[in-house]
Amino acid sequence: MFKARNDLGAPPPLAAGALRVTPLGGLGAIGRNMTAFEFDGRILIVDCGVLFPDMDQPGVDLILPDFTSLLDRLDDIEAIVLTHGHEDHIGAVPYLLAHKTDIPLVGSQFTLALIEAKLRERKIKPYTLPVAEGQREQLGPFACEFLAVNHSIPDAMAVAIRTDAGLVLHTGDFKMDQLPLDGRVTDLAGFARLGAEGVDLFLSDSTNAEIPGFVTSEREIRPVLDEIFRNAEGRIIVASFASHVHRVQQVFDSAAEHGRKVAFIGRSMVRNMGIARDLGLLQIPVGSLVSMDEAARLPDDEIVYMSTGSQGEPMSALGRMASGDHRHVTVESGDTVVLASSLVPGNETAVYGVINRLSRSGATVIHKDVAKVHVSGHAPAGELLYALNVVKPSNFMPVHGEWRHLRAHARLAVASGVPRDQVVLVENGDVVDLVDGVARVVGHVENNYIYVDGLAVGDVGEPVLTERRILGDGGFVSATVVVDSVTGKVVGGPTVSAKGFSEDQNAFNDVLPLITEALDKAAAEGVSDPHQLQQLVRRTVGKWVNDTYRRRPMIVPHVLEVLTHPATPDRS
Amino acid sequence: MFKARNDLGAPPPLAAGALRVTPLGGLGAIGRNMTAFEFDGRILIVDCGVLFPDMDQPGVDLILPDFTSLLDRLDDIEAIVLTHGHEDHIGAVPYLLAHKTDIPLVGSQFTLALIEAKLRERKIKPYTLPVAEGQREQLGPFACEFLAVNHSIPDAMAVAIRTDAGLVLHTGDFKMDQLPLDGRVTDLAGFARLGAEGVDLFLSDSTNAEIPGFVTSEREIRPVLDEIFRNAEGRIIVASFASHVHRVQQVFDSAAEHGRKVAFIGRSMVRNMGIARDLGLLQIPVGSLVSMDEAARLPDDEIVYMSTGSQGEPMSALGRMASGDHRHVTVESGDTVVLASSLVPGNETAVYGVINRLSRSGATVIHKDVAKVHVSGHAPAGELLYALNVVKPSNFMPVHGEWRHLRAHARLAVASGVPRDQVVLVENGDVVDLVDGVARVVGHVENNYIYVDGLAVGDVGEPVLTERRILGDGGFVSATVVVDSVTGKVVGGPTVSAKGFSEDQNAFNDVLPLITEALDKAAAEGVSDPHQLQQLVRRTVGKWVNDTYRRRPMIVPHVLEVLTHPATPDRS
Repeated sequence: MFKARNDLGAPPPLAAGALRVTPLGGLGAIGRNMTAFEFDGRILIVDCGVLFPDMDQPGVDLILPDFTSLLDRLDDIEAIVLTHGHEDHIGAVPYLLAHKTDIPLVGSQFTLALIEAKLRERKIKPYTLPVAEGQREQLGPFACEFLAVNHSIPDAMAVAIRTDAGLVLHTGDFKMDQLPLDGRVTDLAGFARLGAEGVDLFLSDSTNAEIPGFVTSEREIRPVLDEIFRNAEGRIIVASFASHVHRVQQVFDSAAEHGRKVAFIGRSMVRNMGIARDLGLLQIPVGSLVSMDEAARLPDDEIVYMSTGSQGEPMSALGRMASGDHRHVTVESGDTVVLASSLVPGNETAVYGVINRLSRSGATVIHKDVAKVHVSGHAPAGELLYALNVVKPSNFMPVHGEWRHLRAHARLAVASGVPRDQVVLVENGDVVDLVDGVARVVGHVENNYIYVDGLAVGDVGEPVLTERRILGDGGFVSATVVVDSVTGKVVGGPTVSAKGFSEDQNAFNDVLPLITEALDKAAAEGVSDPHQLQQLVRRTVGKWVNDTYRRRPMIVPHVLEVLTHPATPDRS
Repeated sequence: MFKARNDLGAPPPLAAGALRVTPLGGLGAIGRNMTAFEFDGRILIVDCGVLFPDMDQPGVDLILPDFTSLLDRLDDIEAIVLTHGHEDHIGAVPYLLAHKTDIPLVGSQFTLALIEAKLRERKIKPYTLPVAEGQREQLGPFACEFLAVNHSIPDAMAVAIRTDAGLVLHTGDFKMDQLPLDGRVTDLAGFARLGAEGVDLFLSDSTNAEIPGFVTSEREIRPVLDEIFRNAEGRIIVASFASHVHRVQQVFDSAAEHGRKVAFIGRSMVRNMGIARDLGLLQIPVGSLVSMDEAARLPDDEIVYMSTGSQGEPMSALGRMASGDHRHVTVESGDTVVLASSLVPGNETAVYGVINRLSRSGATVIHKDVAKVHVSGHAPAGELLYALNVVKPSNFMPVHGEWRHLRAHARLAVASGVPRDQVVLVENGDVVDLVDGVARVVGHVENNYIYVDGLAVGDVGEPVLTERRILGDGGFVSATVVVDSVTGKVVGGPTVSAKGFSEDQNAFNDVLPLITEALDKAAAEGVSDPHQLQQLVRRTVGKWVNDTYRRRPMIVPHVLEVLTHPATPDRS
């Protein structure tokens, strides 16, 4: 099981009494988490998130799980269980509900409130079933039990799924801060109880499986914030994820202790913290929260702006402040900016760009490389071993991670005593059947990255991205020739133009005669097929560009046919 | 001095007895380090390196310092002092020597050997002056003294420059490992001696100014390597920078202890280690080094491959091994790969991509997030304070860093007692004059990023990069119409095609009639100017794309004129 396979065919029909598990996302990259469980003809989905594109996926807004294998089975879907409210777990729900709006959504209060706010923007009112930790719900043939887990967002849950095929435990995202701010620890006792009952398949969060040891408690950030707040002479701006309620709580607590009030900046921060406050998850001391207008009237040393934009997003509140084009706040010398957040891989250039622009303005910028202003939301190796040791699963499937994370988690499982061939190391679309207590890969269903770009979903795929990469690296050189549709004679052009190639005005002076020469030669040889002429132009220009510049722009030849001879019959 | 200025004009003529310092690169980004010192009409250059492009500079191979202000003063250049042999300090030398090949290069033996190897590839034989630590050289009016510094490459030096204007100390890149492998510590005693004499201007490496504390000694990596080598059952592949002689030395030492031989993979690794060995900087135990062919015949547990590619470069040895297309080595289950290297910001996606591909193959991959297999080559805050406290400069100028690093280093200087307005925080091209012991910004000379793309230097600038970014994000939509050059009547097209936009074959069916309609309307109104028609086509297509897709591809309209009416006089 320790080697990736490329040789899987379509899965066989599901045997009676067997459970089928198909990860449709979440493996091989961190994002678009989604797993389909099938039993007795019914399907239960756990999570339905988006993946954010990296630099190899230019121009793409979002990446969805591949719903293809579900589209002709929408009526068989019993429910979507959402383990928590992060985008990589709920962000694709609107796109699945676009196919069928009445699939019930099951999750904790906070999770459902976040997805409902998202769906409201698209005018979808979903069917929801709120559940809490300790609760059990029968969803068709799936007897679900929900367990509290500690993560970087409140109200996260693991889910245990019982069918006649056995007991499955899916952790969702979790870590094991033993002194979390809300006192709601990961229910290790519950994991142990399930372990005693016998977990047939354990799916567990692999994000930090490579990292040795244990998480630092969220509450250890508070003294660091206090130290920063004590030293700050001017305004303080703290940026964090807009769903990290406990991080924001600590900013409120530290602000109160240092005589500062807090104003929210950024649409998602305002919305999510409103929800968190309404649900009693965020405790705002009376009078602590002020509007942007009130904030502007306060002395610099009495305000904290709590902002979005911790990932360097140019259009976010912090991104705009760094570029000097935020409506309300211009960062200047004397300000202190705290990025109390992780740095999601792929965002480094953007985040350090924002930090540099803020530094150039004269602000003091504190980020996770410099001070302990962030702790991860995911269990590192030490904690994963605790989970493995109490669950003692018969079969183990690492989820939620890139290959390096899945592989590291698999190694931990083996080290903790899971037999090597009971570790199911799979990729998105691989189909795993749990039969008689044994999990086996039985096939593969279609699984592509589904790209959202603007209003359209799925019309951009690898070929278009390849073209974008070529264009983005080298621009294009276009050469246009007009030929008579009857005689094949050149009647216009050649003209050559380019974008993203060179600023040299005379760049193409030398290639025009070469094109003409090639076309003359073709004409002399009686070649008049526009497609052949197009290839000829492409080759001529491509060779010249390579010889002259050693560059590889896209070559775009156009050979256009027009009718120039009046003696020929009018075709219109 | 603590705020960036945008209001500087050309500098005044340099006063007699004054020293002019102009950083031409190295500030605001890590790379293309180059500083020009001018006294009495003569110029001394310290370093001449390249900057590697980030994702915002697509398709570019290298970025050079801006030589513009030097080009009409080439005969005034006394020499180029190279502090050490890293690319960001020597990589632009061939491009400067292309303007004048006989500018002398001054540096340590190893540094000169590396640049000579580089120049040999371009058939340039430079004038060189080897110097060693402790040595003094009069270079025109510049009395230079060289001091040993400890860095991640052997034979690095700081340079002190005496003129009648005062004493300048430039650290080059340095850290202060107190137990370096070669016993060659940074000459803090020399710094102190200069400090006692009175350093008028101190330029110091800012790379790690944000990071508190002290470096871990290079030798602490050895036990980590030993542990990895002890546990490895199959082949071991170690990737590192091809100039990191001490890292390679430790790999040899650990290999010898665990009964393994070493083979070099990667052209620059073979070349540089050959040079290091010849100069006695790398000690290879007899019989330890084997060829690739010999390596292939050894049992898996008796070989270590020492490879390039630690930054995820796709064409490097490790990059090819990860993709499965290296001529000699295919990574497989059982192999152990160690990335004993930093992760240069901007390379994260590439490096983690390589790690994931190796993990997917079944290899165990160990990198700096997971084990202490790398230490930085740059002094963090604790060490920078030691330097500041012994040098006690009158004026301080942080160099070698992004804004966040320069700002942090400036803060350290102030904390150590340098008066706030004697800290000169400048940008590339800013001109600093040292007059009567006081450093002041007096002006600015042209300073742009000079891009190398393929064979050409400087024909790609911001406008071309902007076009590449637009094309890379959204592709282009091109619309072509042929009109009669006399009547203005449409005789061909419209045709619409696109690249990097959509895979939908029918994407443009709906826009064609809109273009025709717009052109008919224009014809009815008597508009026949091709430029106006082109704008009309651009607007029509752009609006339709935005309304239909909410995307922003580049719109490329072509309106071509041909002669179709035989009755008109032949213009040829």
